[in-house]
Amino acid sequence: MRIGVLTGGGDCPGLNAVIRAVVRKGISVYGHEFVGFRDGWRGPLENDTMPLDIEAVRGILPRGGTILGSSRTNPMKIENGVERIKENLEKNGVDALIAIGGEDTLGVARKLFESGVKVVGVPKTIDNDLNATDYTFGFDTAVNIATEAIDRLHTTAESHHRALICEVMGRHAGWIALHAGMAAGANVILIPEKPFDIDKVCAYVESRFKTRYAPIIVVAEGAHPIEGQMALQSNELDAFGHVRLGGIGEQLAKEIEKRTGKEARTTVLGHIQRGGTPSAFDRVLATRFGLHAIDAVQDGDFGKMVALRGTEIVRVGLEEAVDQLKLVPVERYEEAEVFFG
Amino acid sequence: MRIGVLTGGGDCPGLNAVIRAVVRKGISVYGHEFVGFRDGWRGPLENDTMPLDIEAVRGILPRGGTILGSSRTNPMKIENGVERIKENLEKNGVDALIAIGGEDTLGVARKLFESGVKVVGVPKTIDNDLNATDYTFGFDTAVNIATEAIDRLHTTAESHHRALICEVMGRHAGWIALHAGMAAGANVILIPEKPFDIDKVCAYVESRFKTRYAPIIVVAEGAHPIEGQMALQSNELDAFGHVRLGGIGEQLAKEIEKRTGKEARTTVLGHIQRGGTPSAFDRVLATRFGLHAIDAVQDGDFGKMVALRGTEIVRVGLEEAVDQLKLVPVERYEEAEVFFG
Amino acid sequence: MRIGVLTGGGDCPGLNAVIRAVVRKGISVYGHEFVGFRDGWRGPLENDTMPLDIEAVRGILPRGGTILGSSRTNPMKIENGVERIKENLEKNGVDALIAIGGEDTLGVARKLFESGVKVVGVPKTIDNDLNATDYTFGFDTAVNIATEAIDRLHTTAESHHRALICEVMGRHAGWIALHAGMAAGANVILIPEKPFDIDKVCAYVESRFKTRYAPIIVVAEGAHPIEGQMALQSNELDAFGHVRLGGIGEQLAKEIEKRTGKEARTTVLGHIQRGGTPSAFDRVLATRFGLHAIDAVQDGDFGKMVALRGTEIVRVGLEEAVDQLKLVPVERYEEAEVFFG
Amino acid sequence: MRIGVLTGGGDCPGLNAVIRAVVRKGISVYGHEFVGFRDGWRGPLENDTMPLDIEAVRGILPRGGTILGSSRTNPMKIENGVERIKENLEKNGVDALIAIGGEDTLGVARKLFESGVKVVGVPKTIDNDLNATDYTFGFDTAVNIATEAIDRLHTTAESHHRALICEVMGRHAGWIALHAGMAAGANVILIPEKPFDIDKVCAYVESRFKTRYAPIIVVAEGAHPIEGQMALQSNELDAFGHVRLGGIGEQLAKEIEKRTGKEARTTVLGHIQRGGTPSAFDRVLATRFGLHAIDAVQDGDFGKMVALRGTEIVRVGLEEAVDQLKLVPVERYEEAEVFFG
Repeated sequence: MRIGVLTGGGDCPGLNAVIRAVVRKGISVYGHEFVGFRDGWRGPLENDTMPLDIEAVRGILPRGGTILGSSRTNPMKIENGVERIKENLEKNGVDALIAIGGEDTLGVARKLFESGVKVVGVPKTIDNDLNATDYTFGFDTAVNIATEAIDRLHTTAESHHRALICEVMGRHAGWIALHAGMAAGANVILIPEKPFDIDKVCAYVESRFKTRYAPIIVVAEGAHPIEGQMALQSNELDAFGHVRLGGIGEQLAKEIEKRTGKEARTTVLGHIQRGGTPSAFDRVLATRFGLHAIDAVQDGDFGKMVALRGTEIVRVGLEEAVDQLKLVPVERYEEAEVFFG
Repeated sequence: MRIGVLTGGGDCPGLNAVIRAVVRKGISVYGHEFVGFRDGWRGPLENDTMPLDIEAVRGILPRGGTILGSSRTNPMKIENGVERIKENLEKNGVDALIAIGGEDTLGVARKLFESGVKVVGVPKTIDNDLNATDYTFGFDTAVNIATEAIDRLHTTAESHHRALICEVMGRHAGWIALHAGMAAGANVILIPEKPFDIDKVCAYVESRFKTRYAPIIVVAEGAHPIEGQMALQSNELDAFGHVRLGGIGEQLAKEIEKRTGKEARTTVLGHIQRGGTPSAFDRVLATRFGLHAIDAVQDGDFGKMVALRGTEIVRVGLEEAVDQLKLVPVERYEEAEVFFG
Repeated sequence: MRIGVLTGGGDCPGLNAVIRAVVRKGISVYGHEFVGFRDGWRGPLENDTMPLDIEAVRGILPRGGTILGSSRTNPMKIENGVERIKENLEKNGVDALIAIGGEDTLGVARKLFESGVKVVGVPKTIDNDLNATDYTFGFDTAVNIATEAIDRLHTTAESHHRALICEVMGRHAGWIALHAGMAAGANVILIPEKPFDIDKVCAYVESRFKTRYAPIIVVAEGAHPIEGQMALQSNELDAFGHVRLGGIGEQLAKEIEKRTGKEARTTVLGHIQRGGTPSAFDRVLATRFGLHAIDAVQDGDFGKMVALRGTEIVRVGLEEAVDQLKLVPVERYEEAEVFFG
Repeated sequence: MRIGVLTGGGDCPGLNAVIRAVVRKGISVYGHEFVGFRDGWRGPLENDTMPLDIEAVRGILPRGGTILGSSRTNPMKIENGVERIKENLEKNGVDALIAIGGEDTLGVARKLFESGVKVVGVPKTIDNDLNATDYTFGFDTAVNIATEAIDRLHTTAESHHRALICEVMGRHAGWIALHAGMAAGANVILIPEKPFDIDKVCAYVESRFKTRYAPIIVVAEGAHPIEGQMALQSNELDAFGHVRLGGIGEQLAKEIEKRTGKEARTTVLGHIQRGGTPSAFDRVLATRFGLHAIDAVQDGDFGKMVALRGTEIVRVGLEEAVDQLKLVPVERYEEAEVFFG
């Protein structure tokens, strides 16, 4: 068999580990051949390929990013996108496709499967917000990086009697904020799932300052106050659609300073959360995802995605991946609230 | 309520996180009081206690070890051990006990429960070999440390054309070797569950040397060859019952040198695997174990132990903890074997 | 003798190591007593003290921040500031003072010395811009953190074909940018000492995109373009005088996007550069500074500051500390330029 | 010009950074060509070469080991060794040679220079024991790794009331032990330069156990007791001349147990000290060494070696490199002794 592989969406530590596992097992155990498509769906759309053999995947296990490149190109929004992809798959003699990506990438994979392409999916979201799997790779690495950063903030906050705010990833789901905040002993954690009460946040800040310690607030980029409480600056978008300035972290700092008279400063972790070498957990999870994805191809079990349930890798329908987001449940947030203030 | 807390057995990153969560939630949510017993079962045996309040647990979340100290003292092997413990619990006005430890510690906890003491257990084993829970805290930290160490060995092995062997913890179960070896791209992984074939190991070593890379072998301390294949040195035990010299790593290196004529060297990771700050995963898991243990006490649900199943914390009978070891199943080892050689 | 100790200015990994060394040697070797003044010069101004004995400094060697707290309080700008300090030193029976801080703190120390107070200084600046010493502690830690962060950005930049900009500390001197940029293989490094040519920066960006790699730009917060080249937004200052938004990193990203049409994104490392456990280099340097500072006190050699020259700790006049900034010399920047583009 | 490059002796984090800097500046600034010789002096002896251009050195800056490979081959001990090297240099059209290595490698370089070969040396020793330079690259990385490991041991030692011994590199000079021990707050540091008094070591151990802490002892592999104090086991050497078992760390543990009745355990850090990604300090130092080495070649300034003095890179005669070892001076050891016990 000749199998195509692509990675779509934002990069995530562990992508290379998936690619390596797919290719190593595919070649050495099943005798398949591989072709890499560059930059997500742009690759099969524009027939941009690269060789993908044992040599190509050597040494990539501990490396962040993706040797295949990535993009947010969506063939559904491009005229004849699906047809062009099918043509190019055929041109390359591709019998089956392994698509590694998030909601968007896997949504396309599902459409392709429905139109007859033999696809297996591997879920990827650094935010850990896919419903069908207990964890996605990249999340543990991001949480470790954020935790280490917040660990560092504690001593500065105390030495300077300042509130320090750490803004982490999480547009729709607060998993990174919840885990990193809990791991690093944050005094307040704010997540998108639960609009925050700025009065309560300020009360925590003030009560913390009454000890000889200083407050650390972890805020997911998608967190927001109860409607009407804070006049949020509308965020400036740049030409590429990215929020440029004044994320929720910055605005929260200003509001806390205004209300409490205490100094507050923000650190936005940004890209360093998604780059670099994956944690051991993510390397193992990504490797196992890759091994099971190629097994699914070998079994002819298409239209499926691999997923983690407990300690087992299972297969679920691609439709489950795009079904609904996995949000932080109330009980998990309440666990963290025990340590607030 | 007045609640006693103790930690027994080998130390493990995350013990302090458990203690902190128990005490924080116990005091601030339920209004309990706490007393710490020092050095595992030695504490209640000899009535050696320490204060355990909010101040005592401040700042300990990121710290390795245990503020309560630990020991391997087994009251079952001491005359009137159980009676003395019950007396001292009573003397201290202790209504319930939270015992944090492994198979041995929880075995005693179970006996105490059967004789009427209100006990809740928290499982602890860095080897991850307890059957009742998906993971135990400390394991992820150990795997990360071992992975980072093995990452470091790769470049030295290649630069010097040597086989490098890394001996990791795992007396009965090979979980650390399996995960760290898989995460760090080891060429061979040897675990206690499967006696190894020294001929095959040497064949992997020789085939690896034919590339421009060098072999990395990860071996659990409890791994051993197929009977009769290698004349194992009987290990020298010191006064404290520890193996002193010539662990399996060293002996394997000698055997490989003898058989292949290639240089082989061993690094024994030892104690650095179990010390120091816990990974984010372990801090979150340990914190959640602590929160759910105090909930069980509050609910009067004694004779139980907290456990992780998927992403949920559940309660299981203490007898499950000591039932049987969780060994690496054949399928998991076969996943790793794809990358051997 | 009874000796006062204080730490002033921004916090820096290694402050606690200095305090510990001063106190340990002062007590165990020389038999002195110590009193800690809280929050820099605010302590002796307002007579805010804390006990400082062997117990107080236990376990602080690996901890960031300062157990004494810090502030930017400047007694020169406060009526009778110097007199009040002298009174409070006398009230506390203080024979000599060890002041640990940067240009401002040591400037005050010098004034006090000139007015008769027995002072010894220990230099501290995370920016490494003090002329009298080869290195200051904290700098190596900051460079390591920045390097690790930039390492992480490489794979993301490549996977997404983006220019990534990393803004690091360095208001007047570009040492952190120079070292971290050189260590992490940045494609361009921009420092305050040399106004940058935006045309050249964009040319580097474009030439880099012609390879299969992506450009990484390290920019010191105090870097700026050749006059007139870019319309710099005037930075919004908050109530505490901090720049809030739109630092040079953000503005540079916008300009690069405008000029090259390539996506560019910025990460501002901020506070995580100055917090957390010090590197081994900084722990050793800070410890040696502390040991030599207490030696100077013991020798009655006041009005001096300790400094590193090669591998030796020497004493220099306090006036040297505040003399002039140590800027990155042209030759050092040219070394880095070899790797631009 | 056509320039050969080789790396000899034990590997060291930073070797690749030197090679990269030499090649990048040599090609892009001076227009030279390069040829790599494999495995130290074995390369030019056996005419084993590899291409060395911009592409070959891409991405190697953060990688440990050496892309050129290394060995301890000594052409002085091989018949006609020098002649064969000169022949092969000529065969490859090599005008000048850059030799990166320690005492042995640079000793050969010096002999070759005396017999007419145009050589420039770059010093390398992870033990930091070369007299001509303030620091060598690799040392800072090793000290950081050892410090982090010892940090980890503290909590285990305390939790279990054990003496923990950490054996680090340093056959003739105790620099790694001194720096890591000082950085990690060891209670005793033992170095080859000063035979230790086992009575005193045991006294420190016992006094430490009287606190609620436990002793951490850092011992250089080359440390030894005052003559006659301990019956040292003669170490078993393997076929490759390596000490196999029972290094000084193990023997010290046994002796402490025997004399104090307290449990003592040893961790031998071994190879993990020399592998893996270099610290920022080492990357900068190695890069600067490379840049200045190629400058020396360009200047025709042969028979020299680059060296660090303060913050400057200077050139010294190759004979200085092999002159005498740089040992830890008494004053530096006395600084550390302040913290013993």
